[in-house]
Amino acid sequence: MTKKFYMPTRVFMGYECIAKNCEAFKTLGKKALIVTGASSAKKNGSEHDVKAALDSVGISYLVFDKVMSNPTIACVYEGAKVAKENDVDFIIAIGGGSPMDAGKAIALLAAQDIDAANLFSGNYENKVLPIAFVPTTAGTGSEVTQYSILTNDEKQTKTSIASDLLFPALAFLDAKYMEYLSISTTINTALDALSHAVEGMLSVKASSVSNALAVESIQLIMECVPDLLSVLNSKSKTGLELEVREQLQQASFMAGMVIAQTGTTAVHAMGYSLTYFKDIDHGRGNGLLLGEYLRIVEREQPDLAGRILKALSLSSVNEFREITDKLLGEKEDISTDEIQQFSKMAIQTKNIANCIVKPSEDDLKEIFILSFLM
Amino acid sequence: MTKKFYMPTRVFMGYECIAKNCEAFKTLGKKALIVTGASSAKKNGSEHDVKAALDSVGISYLVFDKVMSNPTIACVYEGAKVAKENDVDFIIAIGGGSPMDAGKAIALLAAQDIDAANLFSGNYENKVLPIAFVPTTAGTGSEVTQYSILTNDEKQTKTSIASDLLFPALAFLDAKYMEYLSISTTINTALDALSHAVEGMLSVKASSVSNALAVESIQLIMECVPDLLSVLNSKSKTGLELEVREQLQQASFMAGMVIAQTGTTAVHAMGYSLTYFKDIDHGRGNGLLLGEYLRIVEREQPDLAGRILKALSLSSVNEFREITDKLLGEKEDISTDEIQQFSKMAIQTKNIANCIVKPSEDDLKEIFILSFLM
Repeated sequence: MTKKFYMPTRVFMGYECIAKNCEAFKTLGKKALIVTGASSAKKNGSEHDVKAALDSVGISYLVFDKVMSNPTIACVYEGAKVAKENDVDFIIAIGGGSPMDAGKAIALLAAQDIDAANLFSGNYENKVLPIAFVPTTAGTGSEVTQYSILTNDEKQTKTSIASDLLFPALAFLDAKYMEYLSISTTINTALDALSHAVEGMLSVKASSVSNALAVESIQLIMECVPDLLSVLNSKSKTGLELEVREQLQQASFMAGMVIAQTGTTAVHAMGYSLTYFKDIDHGRGNGLLLGEYLRIVEREQPDLAGRILKALSLSSVNEFREITDKLLGEKEDISTDEIQQFSKMAIQTKNIANCIVKPSEDDLKEIFILSFLM
Repeated sequence: MTKKFYMPTRVFMGYECIAKNCEAFKTLGKKALIVTGASSAKKNGSEHDVKAALDSVGISYLVFDKVMSNPTIACVYEGAKVAKENDVDFIIAIGGGSPMDAGKAIALLAAQDIDAANLFSGNYENKVLPIAFVPTTAGTGSEVTQYSILTNDEKQTKTSIASDLLFPALAFLDAKYMEYLSISTTINTALDALSHAVEGMLSVKASSVSNALAVESIQLIMECVPDLLSVLNSKSKTGLELEVREQLQQASFMAGMVIAQTGTTAVHAMGYSLTYFKDIDHGRGNGLLLGEYLRIVEREQPDLAGRILKALSLSSVNEFREITDKLLGEKEDISTDEIQQFSKMAIQTKNIANCIVKPSEDDLKEIFILSFLM
């Protein structure tokens, strides 16, 4: 099997990296569509900084700020319409995973006509508007992946457009935009990144380079766990230091590079149902399931599980469960009907084919049961 | 300081990856110039495999096989002339560092007119022929860097063209082409890669991601040292297993990704004189000097040296010296005049400005003395 590496995004990292590198926007064109959600990019200062940078280099822009959590197909067609009508040269997505997922799809749909029936086909012309990303959470890693994940009501799940066309041209990583991010979102997104790194090591496409990045990402996240717990258990639930946020952002970026190479596995396959049907946050869903999938891996391939436990600096899956239980708090209810339904859906996904340890449908049920009921 | 990451090359890794991914060449054009040395690409089968792949996808080609070790400026202008006269769409470089360095410069000079006086200026138009690389040694990492290093007689050293234009579009890593590589070249190139990884950690541009790749690269190379010594000390001096060669190739690739982000430091600055004036192989030159530069780092920043020793799985610089001494065997003579001259030249290079621990000219003299005379 040929292993591959490809990640062409130009990444800038560090305090005020947008202002310091605003010239880079000029390589993308003269008119931008800023894609974001309704409020957070305004509150955390990122939208302001992007606009100031664009002003300083003479790039005009307009804003499409209608991206909701778990963006829909309708939303990205609407954004693409705005991009086309205003003849923009490139897209700037600001926010968490949702604006980034939407921004990629908008960039694709603004450059070529694809009807909704073929949106996930992978058969596209070699045309896309260039994309610049300003992530304001540390989890999705979308700033360095080729995936756009949209809510797919027809299939009742989240479905990804996967195309090398979707790699952003630029990404700006400045942790200052996360200063006021709630501790629950911080934890959920950190668990998303952790899941990316761990699942990357569990993928048939894992390589030396993806594993090196995954191990580092896992270590960086685990080092932050005591700080996350301390803020979570504090009265104010605030006060996570910028240094910790920067570390989580680096970890998320590296984990994004990992899944750009490896794709995700059973955990994401199962997690999509938790988000679609039960409105459980995506990162939280992964965090809820990751430990019990690791237990299946340990049963089937103890050496592989051992390498992951070593990266986690833990000696058992139970220890990992204890940590995620503390981070995630009280769990949602899940019914046996839901477990049946979600397992049946997940087993058919391409993420399962991507697993080194391929779980059976019964394994998936067991993961759901142990994750929610134990 | 903004840290950056950029490495847009599409990398294919594994046995027969050229034949399995020959369609990728079609993305680069219809007519190729193969740039290589006089003989090794013919002997090790890589040229044959590239030609077969091109034939199978209907790409025409011609061969420029005049690249010598440490290619000259005249050589790359000659290659560019061939590329222009024959109106080729892209360049395929096959071989060790020399054909890759030459291939990049040829790709640049075939796409735009740059006179020799401005060759190293960095001021280029945004035009280059696409480049595909087939490395047949495991050291330079050139397949994933933006550097082309040429022999510069005017400055009496090796000088690099550094431009993002020079990142190859494609790289094919198949260790089978190294099956008959001599043990001395294998060791020299492994030490070049090791030097890249270690120097990357010692660069002011080091980031979490470059350090993660560097640590993994260092570990992979150090794991191979017993095998390298065992073959070196055997009667036949042959028999290094394909698995070991693959590991060295992965390490070299990752170390290349590291220096694409970080550049190199004092060791390379000093090593260039050893190659230019004393015809010492580039990797060997770095290997000779690396231990004593580490000693300077240990004196000035013991924590930083400690992190590198940890990656090396060693407890002291002396242990590292013992290993490089065993790998490198009898050393060349060096005169006090040469030490004066080489130190004076090296201290003025931009590689020195790139060091976290900036050595003085006296430090450089000390490194030369201890490296060659102890």
